[in-house]
Amino acid sequence: MNTPVSADQQAEIDALRDSPQPTLRAVSPGMEAHLYTAHPVLDHGFVRVVDYMGDDAAICQAARVSYGRGTKSVQNDEGLIRYLMRHWHSTPFEMCEAKFHVKLPVFVARQWIRHRTANVNEYSARYSILDREFYIPQPEQLAAQSRQNNQGRGEVLEGEEAQRVLSLLREDAMRSYDHYEAMLSQAQPDGTPQQGLARELARMNLPANIYTQWYWKVDLHNLLHFLRLRADPHAQYEIRAYADAMCAIVADWVPAAFGAFRDYRMEAVSLSAQAAAVLRRRLKGEVVTQEESGMSAREWREFEGDWG
Amino acid sequence: MNTPVSADQQAEIDALRDSPQPTLRAVSPGMEAHLYTAHPVLDHGFVRVVDYMGDDAAICQAARVSYGRGTKSVQNDEGLIRYLMRHWHSTPFEMCEAKFHVKLPVFVARQWIRHRTANVNEYSARYSILDREFYIPQPEQLAAQSRQNNQGRGEVLEGEEAQRVLSLLREDAMRSYDHYEAMLSQAQPDGTPQQGLARELARMNLPANIYTQWYWKVDLHNLLHFLRLRADPHAQYEIRAYADAMCAIVADWVPAAFGAFRDYRMEAVSLSAQAAAVLRRRLKGEVVTQEESGMSAREWREFEGDWG
Amino acid sequence: MNTPVSADQQAEIDALRDSPQPTLRAVSPGMEAHLYTAHPVLDHGFVRVVDYMGDDAAICQAARVSYGRGTKSVQNDEGLIRYLMRHWHSTPFEMCEAKFHVKLPVFVARQWIRHRTANVNEYSARYSILDREFYIPQPEQLAAQSRQNNQGRGEVLEGEEAQRVLSLLREDAMRSYDHYEAMLSQAQPDGTPQQGLARELARMNLPANIYTQWYWKVDLHNLLHFLRLRADPHAQYEIRAYADAMCAIVADWVPAAFGAFRDYRMEAVSLSAQAAAVLRRRLKGEVVTQEESGMSAREWREFEGDWG
Amino acid sequence: MNTPVSADQQAEIDALRDSPQPTLRAVSPGMEAHLYTAHPVLDHGFVRVVDYMGDDAAICQAARVSYGRGTKSVQNDEGLIRYLMRHWHSTPFEMCEAKFHVKLPVFVARQWIRHRTANVNEYSARYSILDREFYIPQPEQLAAQSRQNNQGRGEVLEGEEAQRVLSLLREDAMRSYDHYEAMLSQAQPDGTPQQGLARELARMNLPANIYTQWYWKVDLHNLLHFLRLRADPHAQYEIRAYADAMCAIVADWVPAAFGAFRDYRMEAVSLSAQAAAVLRRRLKGEVVTQEESGMSAREWREFEGDWG
Repeated sequence: MNTPVSADQQAEIDALRDSPQPTLRAVSPGMEAHLYTAHPVLDHGFVRVVDYMGDDAAICQAARVSYGRGTKSVQNDEGLIRYLMRHWHSTPFEMCEAKFHVKLPVFVARQWIRHRTANVNEYSARYSILDREFYIPQPEQLAAQSRQNNQGRGEVLEGEEAQRVLSLLREDAMRSYDHYEAMLSQAQPDGTPQQGLARELARMNLPANIYTQWYWKVDLHNLLHFLRLRADPHAQYEIRAYADAMCAIVADWVPAAFGAFRDYRMEAVSLSAQAAAVLRRRLKGEVVTQEESGMSAREWREFEGDWG
Repeated sequence: MNTPVSADQQAEIDALRDSPQPTLRAVSPGMEAHLYTAHPVLDHGFVRVVDYMGDDAAICQAARVSYGRGTKSVQNDEGLIRYLMRHWHSTPFEMCEAKFHVKLPVFVARQWIRHRTANVNEYSARYSILDREFYIPQPEQLAAQSRQNNQGRGEVLEGEEAQRVLSLLREDAMRSYDHYEAMLSQAQPDGTPQQGLARELARMNLPANIYTQWYWKVDLHNLLHFLRLRADPHAQYEIRAYADAMCAIVADWVPAAFGAFRDYRMEAVSLSAQAAAVLRRRLKGEVVTQEESGMSAREWREFEGDWG
Repeated sequence: MNTPVSADQQAEIDALRDSPQPTLRAVSPGMEAHLYTAHPVLDHGFVRVVDYMGDDAAICQAARVSYGRGTKSVQNDEGLIRYLMRHWHSTPFEMCEAKFHVKLPVFVARQWIRHRTANVNEYSARYSILDREFYIPQPEQLAAQSRQNNQGRGEVLEGEEAQRVLSLLREDAMRSYDHYEAMLSQAQPDGTPQQGLARELARMNLPANIYTQWYWKVDLHNLLHFLRLRADPHAQYEIRAYADAMCAIVADWVPAAFGAFRDYRMEAVSLSAQAAAVLRRRLKGEVVTQEESGMSAREWREFEGDWG
Repeated sequence: MNTPVSADQQAEIDALRDSPQPTLRAVSPGMEAHLYTAHPVLDHGFVRVVDYMGDDAAICQAARVSYGRGTKSVQNDEGLIRYLMRHWHSTPFEMCEAKFHVKLPVFVARQWIRHRTANVNEYSARYSILDREFYIPQPEQLAAQSRQNNQGRGEVLEGEEAQRVLSLLREDAMRSYDHYEAMLSQAQPDGTPQQGLARELARMNLPANIYTQWYWKVDLHNLLHFLRLRADPHAQYEIRAYADAMCAIVADWVPAAFGAFRDYRMEAVSLSAQAAAVLRRRLKGEVVTQEESGMSAREWREFEGDWG
């Protein structure tokens, strides 16, 4: 069971949720409902919205460089937002911002941080001692190396092999953490005093499935770009789990922008010059072969997989 | 007189200021008081805060990657903020964000935009028609080219010359705008119809003192960096006027962070390796000459100007 | 006639072109041929390649994090580059870099600078005096405001109106520049001494069609993004002229990357979820109406314009 | 012994070093001498220059937006470079770029990547299998947690404790890697076939002292900023070892810029407003106490540590 925050932490969060204050800023009711709540992800992780700026109307307000709210009507605003998304106008979407508190395994954090246009404050293992929490996959997530895709997963591991893997992951995690503590400690197991290794050194013994946490702040344009790449079936399952949780939050925060994002990005199809030409010919009733298409065998396979 | 917003615009702004809403987010009372108010700058410009995220406590909350508010005590927080600023920890300051609506002359906008780590939506002169508003300096700002500093101002122009300059600026601005309108118009002065030049072309006739406006959104770390460079005596007066207005706003928004910024950045002194060595010797009572200092004549002059 | 560089400048450039030096770095023969040559753009502008880093092989080398050249075979490399482009892997393309010297009208510079992920050094009008060079469009570029597209051009202006526009642009440019010089001068026309206005102030009288110049340095990924948006028919003609000239240079620099960019970006077609669904139904022989399509009237019009 | 590249890799590198080609670009002889050479860092790591753009003269060329080389004289150029550095002009330094191939432990990579203004291609452990190479500190680097500084190291560990730590680090590294291989393998130890876990999952068992490698490309301004923070005594020793190696390279690449950086950044002293005021009073012969200084006890301690 994932109980990502302790009772003490929950008490602090509850206190915040009980004390609304008046503001003159734009307020998104859908996002207020998410504030501070820890949405569980994986076995010990979570995503929490800590703060946000703007809403759908703020996108229009910026696009119109208006003095007031910038809203003409909800319908009008949605049309403008869809137009902006369709025609790749990114700056109005940059006018909204969200700040998340995320708890995640280190190997997921290493993928995540590759998105550079964001602000990050990570829990410091030079300064603090990490908790004994490791990501151990559910059995249905234990997959073999894919034979088609060099960087993907294939079939789920069968029973005994899965058990062997889970045992190794669990035992190595526990042993590494025991040794981490032993190196940090100012006493040996029998009580004899020792100096205790510096934290910045001891951490090097910890495996990549240990959990870390950070504050991550990003504008809506770059957040949607992150979600497009990470809520995608080609992304590794473990980061996709976070991206999926964040998609649900964004849909409540800026419903019009998220709808446009879904239609023009997530579920959109990009056709190469060659693929578009083949479709145009097919629509006229022509039969086109790979040889005539200008596509390589691999591209043709991808194209046929998509369009038959 | 600077009346930067029209009656209609003011009515829209007033409506926003009259409708506070509850929020669970961090609220900065000092910043709420500024929200939407247009602070006049130069003859027709302004700076207005449109939205913000975070406060002094949010800086500490991020630095501590905490579950709750992150505050221990106001005094404790201020100490942490000063420590972070003193030791060049920039990421916690990136966790606050502000969005401004700014009206400014084009030549100021061209300097401003050089700060790339910000989000901008500018009023489009391809899409819309610019207003007939131009920056005309106050007589006390009409200065001669500096003889010491190749990119600065020297003495204020004397009476008649100043009048000649003001006349030229005013007349050229009015004539350029008249011709801008004439080119855009679908009728000649005598009423004969004409096609009317595209806006994206007609705008090229307008001089750099015409006013434009934009939404500008930036995190606190990058905002302070902007203010450090632009609220500086070496910056051109016209952009400094905006930076000064924004300093006053930031001081109300995040008083502890602004205090630390003032002490460790704005009013701080940076000593080169050579200058520090000279001061150390002077403190021991030694007299050091330029020849012994390792500084060039120019550096020595700057150093003596500062330290006597 | 566009003679963008003076005889002196050309002599300096020629001296550089006559002195090749040995290097151990990756060399792109196609790009060496462009080095320093000023490609004329518009009436007084140009684009010159000043330096570059990397070639097609360097993209593969980085993608493979290889010790040597990273090349397996030209064919193999091209396949990898096309795969990377097709699947939105941007970081290998960031491993190439180009530095351009560009001379361009200020209103073009103002659009260009919106692309923030680049390094820029602009000629300083605080420090130096600008030249008397203004962009005056060719008659065939003088277009009316579009009636369909609020930010585009429509039909070319007819004879007399075009002449009136050209006269206004030319006269206002010359007069503004005359007054710029008069304000800067340390003597009145009759020789009476005056102080001379600071350059940083006098420049505000100059219209947006005056030429400026800058050094612009950018990685290949961001350069291609710039070209995608600015070599597009929706971009304003004047910036497109620069983008077109740069496309020709990039095609010689990294032929495989440019080919992939052309097929998967410039000439690619992006279908919304709804548009893809309509095409799938059409391929099965169904007739789909706007009402059934899930598209707005405007989207349907854009879709029909593209697919019939 | 650190033999960071294999014989095959060295052969590839040697081939590159043996085939200089002519170029018209700016060439830095000091940097050519470093090209491709793997400078050993820590026990298995290295830094190699793969490519570069620009030299000291290119900084001046960009600052002057010049047509030719931009050089007036070496002395003149050095003066300009020192002026630019002293007055925080960053854009001319952005006009130089370097690309490094770095092999480094994962916990160092995690600190390094926090510098976001750079381009990175990391060896993919989703796609490839990592090598059995782990960072094991030299005994003289095994330090206790500092008692003064919460995120630093204190005294070196004494004999037996050091041996215990080294044994734990070595044994856990080997065991984790054995299990990594066992999970990936398509056969059990006794030869019974198994499916083999996906690489993207198996990697989570590897500790943070395993080596990874990447291509890292950065402009000179941001490289110097990185070096200022990471070649600093407060930085963790392991990343400082890389920064020190890179300082030596940069000093050969752009000697004037590096000299200015050393004098105005690395060895410069920043005085807060309060500290500067105290020094001014001391220079006049006054004795100033902490109480009068406006500094907190902690700041005063830091100040006294520096100035006596």
